[in-house]
Amino acid sequence: MQIDLRLKQKEHDYKVYINELERIELKGKVAIVTNPKVAGLHLKRLLDVLKCDDYFIVTVPDGEEYKNLTTVESILEQLFTSRLDRSSTLIAFGGGVISDMVGFVASIYQRGIKFINIPTTLLSQVDASVGGKTGVNNKFGKNLIGSFYQPEAVYCESKFLQTLAKREFSAGVAEAIKMAVTFDKEMFEWLENADLNDEKNLANLIYKAVGIKANVVMDDEKEKSVRAVLNYGHTFAHVIENQTNYKTYLHGEAVAIGINMANALALHLGLMSKEEVERVKRLLLKFDLPTSYKINDEELFCDAFFLDKKSENSKIKFILADGIGNAVIKDNISKSDVLKVLREFK
Amino acid sequence: MQIDLRLKQKEHDYKVYINELERIELKGKVAIVTNPKVAGLHLKRLLDVLKCDDYFIVTVPDGEEYKNLTTVESILEQLFTSRLDRSSTLIAFGGGVISDMVGFVASIYQRGIKFINIPTTLLSQVDASVGGKTGVNNKFGKNLIGSFYQPEAVYCESKFLQTLAKREFSAGVAEAIKMAVTFDKEMFEWLENADLNDEKNLANLIYKAVGIKANVVMDDEKEKSVRAVLNYGHTFAHVIENQTNYKTYLHGEAVAIGINMANALALHLGLMSKEEVERVKRLLLKFDLPTSYKINDEELFCDAFFLDKKSENSKIKFILADGIGNAVIKDNISKSDVLKVLREFK
Repeated sequence: MQIDLRLKQKEHDYKVYINELERIELKGKVAIVTNPKVAGLHLKRLLDVLKCDDYFIVTVPDGEEYKNLTTVESILEQLFTSRLDRSSTLIAFGGGVISDMVGFVASIYQRGIKFINIPTTLLSQVDASVGGKTGVNNKFGKNLIGSFYQPEAVYCESKFLQTLAKREFSAGVAEAIKMAVTFDKEMFEWLENADLNDEKNLANLIYKAVGIKANVVMDDEKEKSVRAVLNYGHTFAHVIENQTNYKTYLHGEAVAIGINMANALALHLGLMSKEEVERVKRLLLKFDLPTSYKINDEELFCDAFFLDKKSENSKIKFILADGIGNAVIKDNISKSDVLKVLREFK
Repeated sequence: MQIDLRLKQKEHDYKVYINELERIELKGKVAIVTNPKVAGLHLKRLLDVLKCDDYFIVTVPDGEEYKNLTTVESILEQLFTSRLDRSSTLIAFGGGVISDMVGFVASIYQRGIKFINIPTTLLSQVDASVGGKTGVNNKFGKNLIGSFYQPEAVYCESKFLQTLAKREFSAGVAEAIKMAVTFDKEMFEWLENADLNDEKNLANLIYKAVGIKANVVMDDEKEKSVRAVLNYGHTFAHVIENQTNYKTYLHGEAVAIGINMANALALHLGLMSKEEVERVKRLLLKFDLPTSYKINDEELFCDAFFLDKKSENSKIKFILADGIGNAVIKDNISKSDVLKVLREFK
């Protein structure tokens, strides 16, 4: 299966291949950036299909807490030492942390070189590896430093997911649920019934999610409008991740909690019924995802929204589900409404 | 005087204003990034014409040796602390070091915010502030980390040059000479006779140089072809600057030496006559620019070309003048030819 991404600048067009990784042929030097765990599990399979003259392996530590400028500098250093030039290609081989960082490195190495995404986590296959958002975290928040920079191609292989821990797998499902709730009621119903242990269903899930993501990105690459909807659940998730130092929850888990918090706000504002909120929660629970987080200080939690990069002119944008299968962007929600809902999570 | 830059992506179009800084009106937060010296000399004049609700001043140390990722991080930190968001604007107020760094910061802060260049050195006014090349140096070389990212507008004010040290001024003239030799014989002849102490001549010089730069950038924004010609003299200059830790020569001074070295190579290859080489050298000397540098080890000097980012697939690209007013890009010059010419500088 293939999905085409056609962008405003034709030279940025690319394809997402699902279960079609048979041969990658590249000219010039290649650097595969990965982490020790992914390399141990899957590198051989990648090397079997990679045809190029000269390649290097660069590893970075595994985990969201290493998605920062220090790691970016260490990757850059290794690329310069390996003398990569403007004709070289980077391959991001790992989860969302790797693809976000490698995309960023590709965008600033000698003012931009090519990169290919080969995501090895479900989260990255259904979401992070597609669409050209790159970046790293800093102490002020998530993905606050980065660029829009598109890959040359994305290869999603469901085989790589066989070794994925159950928690990691579920975290990926959370991002797919995000897309279903905001864009696709049919997919939501399909997810309620589908057995994702079935290989064919899994490939289908990736295809459905990448299809939604591709359409959104083609409409609005730089997130001036509809692309913001993909941040559903994330405004809350970013604060939760930040407060827990990116250690307690996987990103997708924080998103699951964030979805449930956003829905509580949607319920409060009359956008969702109690039944719809419960139905989404049931789907999250079907995949053993967390849906609650103890907020100790709702004022502090609310203030933390402010520096989330989606806010402009001090207005906080909330992405809320409007029933199941639709979403709205709200930037006029009063602080007292938000605080009231946050208090439910005390 | 105004010069229009029209680019492939229409939303990136902008104007360069020469001696037209009367009022800058901006919405959202503004951060002016400058250095202590420029701020002391000229900030008041900028603040007199800046109309906005909320602004911050961020200073960075003066000098090419601070054009690195550490300084970039320090700027980012101050912007996050000041809570700049996606609707904010950065103003780069200083020389080429400032505009290169601020442009880079603007390109990666929250995946890209607006920036305006107000160059206060001649070098930056005639060259660096126009065209969207941003970046910083690292131990491997100059501008090796960066992006292509266009400003919203550029304001060149010859008044800011009145306080410029003579050496700084001459360094700027070197970049203008670069453009004249490679693109414009008439401008070269004009420069041979012009008195740049005359205000009108100075404004004219900026207008001529920006005009050439704008045409080149409009033709080839991402340096796939003709824009590389603007690197005339720079392949040599970068090695010289690196070997002297960016401390002995101003960038423009190193370019002047580099121009003379490139011309020696052009003479050796029969592209320039001895008279033409001497004529360019005379023009450099008219502005008290250096034209020579003692190469201790020509093999080492030659190896250093390799990691210069213009090289692809181990081929070193040399930009050479083909007479005065024309240039060629050569990627097939033998190492022995290069070494032979470098030996003349021992």
